[in-house]
Amino acid sequence: MYNKVLDTDVAALKKIVGDDAVLVGEEISEDYGHDELGGIVSMPEVLVRAASTEQISAIMKLAYERCIPVTVRGSGTGLVGSAVALHGGILLETGKMNKILELDRENLTVTVQPGVLLMELAAFAEENDFLYPPDPGEKSATIGGNISTNAGGMRAVKYGVTRDYVRALTVVLPNGEIMNLGAKVAKNSSGYSLKDLIIGSEGTLAIITEAVLKLVPLPKVSVSLLVPFPDTKSAIEAVPHIIRSKVTPTAIEYMSRDTILFSESYLGKKFPDTKNDAYILLTFDGATDAQVEADMETVAELCLKIGALDAYIVDTEERKKSVWSARGAFLEAIKASTTEMDECDVVVPVNKIDYFIKFTHALADELNIRIPSFGHAGDGNLHIYVCRDDLDDECWEEKLAEAFDRMYKTSEEIGGLVSGEHGIGYAKRNYLKRQYGETPIALMQGIKRVFDEKNILNPGKICY
Amino acid sequence: MYNKVLDTDVAALKKIVGDDAVLVGEEISEDYGHDELGGIVSMPEVLVRAASTEQISAIMKLAYERCIPVTVRGSGTGLVGSAVALHGGILLETGKMNKILELDRENLTVTVQPGVLLMELAAFAEENDFLYPPDPGEKSATIGGNISTNAGGMRAVKYGVTRDYVRALTVVLPNGEIMNLGAKVAKNSSGYSLKDLIIGSEGTLAIITEAVLKLVPLPKVSVSLLVPFPDTKSAIEAVPHIIRSKVTPTAIEYMSRDTILFSESYLGKKFPDTKNDAYILLTFDGATDAQVEADMETVAELCLKIGALDAYIVDTEERKKSVWSARGAFLEAIKASTTEMDECDVVVPVNKIDYFIKFTHALADELNIRIPSFGHAGDGNLHIYVCRDDLDDECWEEKLAEAFDRMYKTSEEIGGLVSGEHGIGYAKRNYLKRQYGETPIALMQGIKRVFDEKNILNPGKICY
Repeated sequence: MYNKVLDTDVAALKKIVGDDAVLVGEEISEDYGHDELGGIVSMPEVLVRAASTEQISAIMKLAYERCIPVTVRGSGTGLVGSAVALHGGILLETGKMNKILELDRENLTVTVQPGVLLMELAAFAEENDFLYPPDPGEKSATIGGNISTNAGGMRAVKYGVTRDYVRALTVVLPNGEIMNLGAKVAKNSSGYSLKDLIIGSEGTLAIITEAVLKLVPLPKVSVSLLVPFPDTKSAIEAVPHIIRSKVTPTAIEYMSRDTILFSESYLGKKFPDTKNDAYILLTFDGATDAQVEADMETVAELCLKIGALDAYIVDTEERKKSVWSARGAFLEAIKASTTEMDECDVVVPVNKIDYFIKFTHALADELNIRIPSFGHAGDGNLHIYVCRDDLDDECWEEKLAEAFDRMYKTSEEIGGLVSGEHGIGYAKRNYLKRQYGETPIALMQGIKRVFDEKNILNPGKICY
Repeated sequence: MYNKVLDTDVAALKKIVGDDAVLVGEEISEDYGHDELGGIVSMPEVLVRAASTEQISAIMKLAYERCIPVTVRGSGTGLVGSAVALHGGILLETGKMNKILELDRENLTVTVQPGVLLMELAAFAEENDFLYPPDPGEKSATIGGNISTNAGGMRAVKYGVTRDYVRALTVVLPNGEIMNLGAKVAKNSSGYSLKDLIIGSEGTLAIITEAVLKLVPLPKVSVSLLVPFPDTKSAIEAVPHIIRSKVTPTAIEYMSRDTILFSESYLGKKFPDTKNDAYILLTFDGATDAQVEADMETVAELCLKIGALDAYIVDTEERKKSVWSARGAFLEAIKASTTEMDECDVVVPVNKIDYFIKFTHALADELNIRIPSFGHAGDGNLHIYVCRDDLDDECWEEKLAEAFDRMYKTSEEIGGLVSGEHGIGYAKRNYLKRQYGETPIALMQGIKRVFDEKNILNPGKICY
């Protein structure tokens, strides 16, 4: 179905991007065969490091002509195999396209290349007294990757997700054509939103080569509150109460003692408090100390009234660092605690989180496996890890399949969706199919064919 | 290409929705042949008033089978002919589907049928101490219509547009199948966003039969500020300064004396001040008086420093009413001031509004016609009216074509888009084609075919 990459193709690619930006065979590090989670492994035939929209256009013209599959990769931090070259072919890395091109203070936008890292953009915005609100846990992901998965992060409660901050995109279509979508404007009712179709499409419809992102003024004050509870139930049950109180925290994160202890041992750093079973960590931001303090007080009092054991204000730089670096290391820490794991990234209505977490605890007991979790309690997005520990191959595969099957079924029953922010990629496509049923999948396949009739762009992902 | 509606079809439709919900021929009021602007006139063969998702599904199954075109209509307040039955067939009115089905205080959502009016939803939310932020000028539009055009409104500066508030949709596809999209969740990375494709598709891809919308806590304080300037230039030039000051008003509206005077005479009510050439009207909302006052003071001082002549606080109910009812009546007032008009709804980058408005003034002088305008200065979305007054047919058509042609060209040159919030429909599709070029239009046509291979749903709109 696809053509293999020939020496003549390699020569043509070198002509486009330069000799040192094309690697073949054993020159390609094994890291390029998998993503962060590592469950799916497949090496590309050739790795190409593109430096511009025009180069990507020329690469795609070649690939289209020759019917060679192309998979785009940012920094490889994905968790569902989206950036794995399932059918070999060309792996197109965007890391060289890492420039912040423009800060527009009058239209509150920043224009970036896709290879800019989230942490670079966050720092740049802050240096200029702005905030780029989307805040996924993985700070070394690229912005191109964030847009491709519609990454959410911790501030979604108050600020929304990546989709809400993409004003315009430059993309390259599978046939190499360059297309501009959107503009530096807040409103747009000019035909079907192709821009919104590409956001979250995991590199299957077009290649993002430039993005205009919305910024907001940097809130002058930002403080966190760490609230310990005697158990998971009371911690999670506090969340709908907080939301109903009509104070809008920037973030509401849930964490269990287990997960905090993994993180402590992984980082070798102490968390301010680990004597309680469950915690919620909240952030509040705003224009004045008075306003942020008032919000924080309302929530602290409410939590204490409904069962919290305490409420620590996290306001010193040191405390902030210890708490948020622990939170940031959860995924790595759980990974380090086991031999292998797979992740479930469901999103459920906020008032069903408690139900879902209790369900995973019961499931862990029943299957006799570890299923640690943490998550964005304020927006219903949970990250749940099924750990292999010392299970043999057969037993692991069986239990993993059973656990995933039942988690997705339960999520569906309570009005949840397969992925809150990590995407579908290769790993979750069967669960997507099961939940959506034939018609939405057929529509997605139809849309895929409209963009990519030769099916050369990241084939085998999402709806195939 | 399409079949005519036969007596047997009418009988079948009556069986689905009841005898009194089907009107044919002269039973149908002429109002159903056009929308609010009235530029495009075409009567349907049959008018059907649907009462449920299931009825709409049955109607579409019939229409699909028989290849009869179907156009959906809310309350007919559109301005680009989207709800006009261009090819006759069935006009499907959603006005009977006007129930607010659920308020979910824990997930901050409200579930509505598509025929609920914006003003009804706004009042319901407020009664329950919530805000539904999208605030288009036309309060008697239906929510289904708002979603179909991705309506923006006055609060987009701070709160975004309709798209940002749609959590989930139930839709009926052209073949009658019912499909659910999205969920009561804030994050979603579960495949291509079909929901975002349907938002803004003006009833061409699927029929919206239920929507879950996001609410926010009702801000406790909301105050407006009316700032007179000596001329348009200084008024509009103040806007980027305000935005750079990092105070985020809820709304920044621009209005010229002409437009205010039309409105005064249309409403027979006095505006607080009409002695100056240009005004900006700002709204601020927030949790406390102190915060809102501080924001307002920052902006008032800034405006006075850069040329404002005064700054009136609009805080009494009476003043609020007089100012905002004038603002709300602009479209009607301009319409009443002339014999016929057509509207341009471009959106341009905020820092180009001044340039664009000056351009329309020069254009009016050059063509010797009236082109009054008003608009959302804070988000770059302008509403510009080319007035016929006493021109004869030939002269009117010539000048109108020339004016539109040059306005869209100029908008394009400065990075704007064809429509900020009113949509493309029938009236603006050639301008959309010209700006986007072949490829995006071909992609939209391809998507349309994926959803509607018989092209029976609102044919002839947007990309055709």
